[in-house]
Amino acid sequence: MTRVINFSAGPATLPLPVLEYAHNEFLDHEGTGMSLIEHSHRGAAYAKVHEEAKSLFRELMNVPDTHDILFMQGGATAQFALVPMNLRGAGQSADYINTGVWSDKAMAEALILGAAREAGTGKVDGKYTRVPKQAELELDPGAAYAHFTSNNTIMGTQFHEYPDSGDVPLVADMSSDILWRPIDVSKFGLIYAGAQKNLGPAGVTVLIFRKDLAERSPSTIPKIFRYKTILDGDSLQNTIPTFAVYMVRNVLRWVRDQGGAPAMEKRNREKAGSIYGMIDENPGFFHCPVEVESRSMMNPVFRLPTEDLEKKLIAEAAEAGMVGIKGHRSVGGIRTSIYNAMEPSDVQKFVDFAKAFAQKNG
Amino acid sequence: MTRVINFSAGPATLPLPVLEYAHNEFLDHEGTGMSLIEHSHRGAAYAKVHEEAKSLFRELMNVPDTHDILFMQGGATAQFALVPMNLRGAGQSADYINTGVWSDKAMAEALILGAAREAGTGKVDGKYTRVPKQAELELDPGAAYAHFTSNNTIMGTQFHEYPDSGDVPLVADMSSDILWRPIDVSKFGLIYAGAQKNLGPAGVTVLIFRKDLAERSPSTIPKIFRYKTILDGDSLQNTIPTFAVYMVRNVLRWVRDQGGAPAMEKRNREKAGSIYGMIDENPGFFHCPVEVESRSMMNPVFRLPTEDLEKKLIAEAAEAGMVGIKGHRSVGGIRTSIYNAMEPSDVQKFVDFAKAFAQKNG
Repeated sequence: MTRVINFSAGPATLPLPVLEYAHNEFLDHEGTGMSLIEHSHRGAAYAKVHEEAKSLFRELMNVPDTHDILFMQGGATAQFALVPMNLRGAGQSADYINTGVWSDKAMAEALILGAAREAGTGKVDGKYTRVPKQAELELDPGAAYAHFTSNNTIMGTQFHEYPDSGDVPLVADMSSDILWRPIDVSKFGLIYAGAQKNLGPAGVTVLIFRKDLAERSPSTIPKIFRYKTILDGDSLQNTIPTFAVYMVRNVLRWVRDQGGAPAMEKRNREKAGSIYGMIDENPGFFHCPVEVESRSMMNPVFRLPTEDLEKKLIAEAAEAGMVGIKGHRSVGGIRTSIYNAMEPSDVQKFVDFAKAFAQKNG
Repeated sequence: MTRVINFSAGPATLPLPVLEYAHNEFLDHEGTGMSLIEHSHRGAAYAKVHEEAKSLFRELMNVPDTHDILFMQGGATAQFALVPMNLRGAGQSADYINTGVWSDKAMAEALILGAAREAGTGKVDGKYTRVPKQAELELDPGAAYAHFTSNNTIMGTQFHEYPDSGDVPLVADMSSDILWRPIDVSKFGLIYAGAQKNLGPAGVTVLIFRKDLAERSPSTIPKIFRYKTILDGDSLQNTIPTFAVYMVRNVLRWVRDQGGAPAMEKRNREKAGSIYGMIDENPGFFHCPVEVESRSMMNPVFRLPTEDLEKKLIAEAAEAGMVGIKGHRSVGGIRTSIYNAMEPSDVQKFVDFAKAFAQKNG
């Protein structure tokens, strides 16, 4: 096979060794005579996968005992609804830091069910080209929680310093940058992430959950939608998407074998540095609309002098085996999603290609 | 590899040709240079899978134009909450036919949010050993909908004639027997089914949804939990569990190649017939607690003279390469889950084994 270089924003490229491992035992999981996807979610084979996935999260993200790792379904979008349903009391308001499409959607769901306010914005001249700094936030000390989106795939922005919400639980949608570098989990009430960018395939959402918050789940919402039910059931209150968790476990093993979160940070900074370097060295041809301090290490975005040149770059890249670089339909331009699994050597190939393209077409 | 015969209740055995097909192209989906699980849910490769899965459902289940096929996450258990959230108006009540654990859980979720009543029961002397007949039901003509569980995996019961709810939309949890035989979809407002028994792996729930019911979704519930959002978004309103849908598509192709729903019915009746035949021919040793007319074609359950003999049967079956026959922990005994994918020849092997066991131990 000829493997393409896949810059898709998610579902996204996975480490080839992880795919090969899953491929090798797809028909016969660890000699059990059946595929992992045929195993009962209550059997010993899956239980081993489940426990290992959880313990790898605990190890790689240095998760303290105050927090547990939960697996849910429905993606980050379901969490947009479940966070206010579970964590906001009757009559309480929640704070949202708005940095574009995803945090906007999260706040919209919160507003359907109760009170929420914008505690900060990344909007400049109508566009979300940066993330706000701590001094710019107007956090409500009485809020049920403060929510932000740590990395914004569409705008190509990222928080490099996390908001400090004091005693108010900090809730982060880390779908697109979980485990990109070491972080201090103890500062968070809840971290949630759809797996399909930095952790594995689509179909499972990981929650790093401060256990005492489970007591907030009201008995007036359906049992299956209460964080307390998921925590008490060890995510096995009903059938879990076994294959998705298995693939996440395999990706986490790979992260560990690479050297863990510190190795991911080094690798990711190197990749992003090479793309931003190319942009900054060719200011007449490439342009990144994002404020330098807010640039995403996961989804560098940039523009070319004309939309026709952008189309040409996308087409020629595809011919050269590099796909998924078209910017989100709402903003246009070029987007290179370079999550943990993306190989630095593949990014270098793209950078070499784009530099040559600039020279030919500039 | 030595493939075991897997009688698990779900996740369950899948057709070997389906697993082999997925295995063959796992690293390179249709020559695209990447795995299906790495493809964007908005790209052409996945779009093809999505459309084919839907059109196969339409063909194999003879789904009329009034209905659409939706894919959701969260399993049937999430539907226990979503059905009343979406289909029951303020102040309305919903009818539930109670045939054991699963319908009981469905009704419990409905009661958290509003009014629901038991419109029939399968309980006899404290146990759910049958399903009620039409004449026994006390359906409310003003109910928002009437809900039932078409097959009961734990009790081993099944509806062989579906309830007639008149003008009240009929809602069925068909997680454990969808597509086991041809049915008349036009009689249903909503059919839902977690995939992990008769359709594929865990991680996706299929809904056969009468489109006009989408207008009932209230704007007071989160947008992501409205059936209207899923219908309008063609199940792509947010990231869909692409691999699970892909596997369902592959299973549906296999069902079509076997001869569709009529072939499944023939195959399933043959398998179940051979197990129930064995039970009825050895009344001194085997005993099926279920009323004959309510016996499940998917999950035949039976007891042996003593629990020790049951344990011995389970252990000796495992040694002979037949696993997953232990009854649900809430009822004990033996359960043989023989969904569509289970080969008749494998059921025959079990029956031969169990008959010999009876002769030796009877």
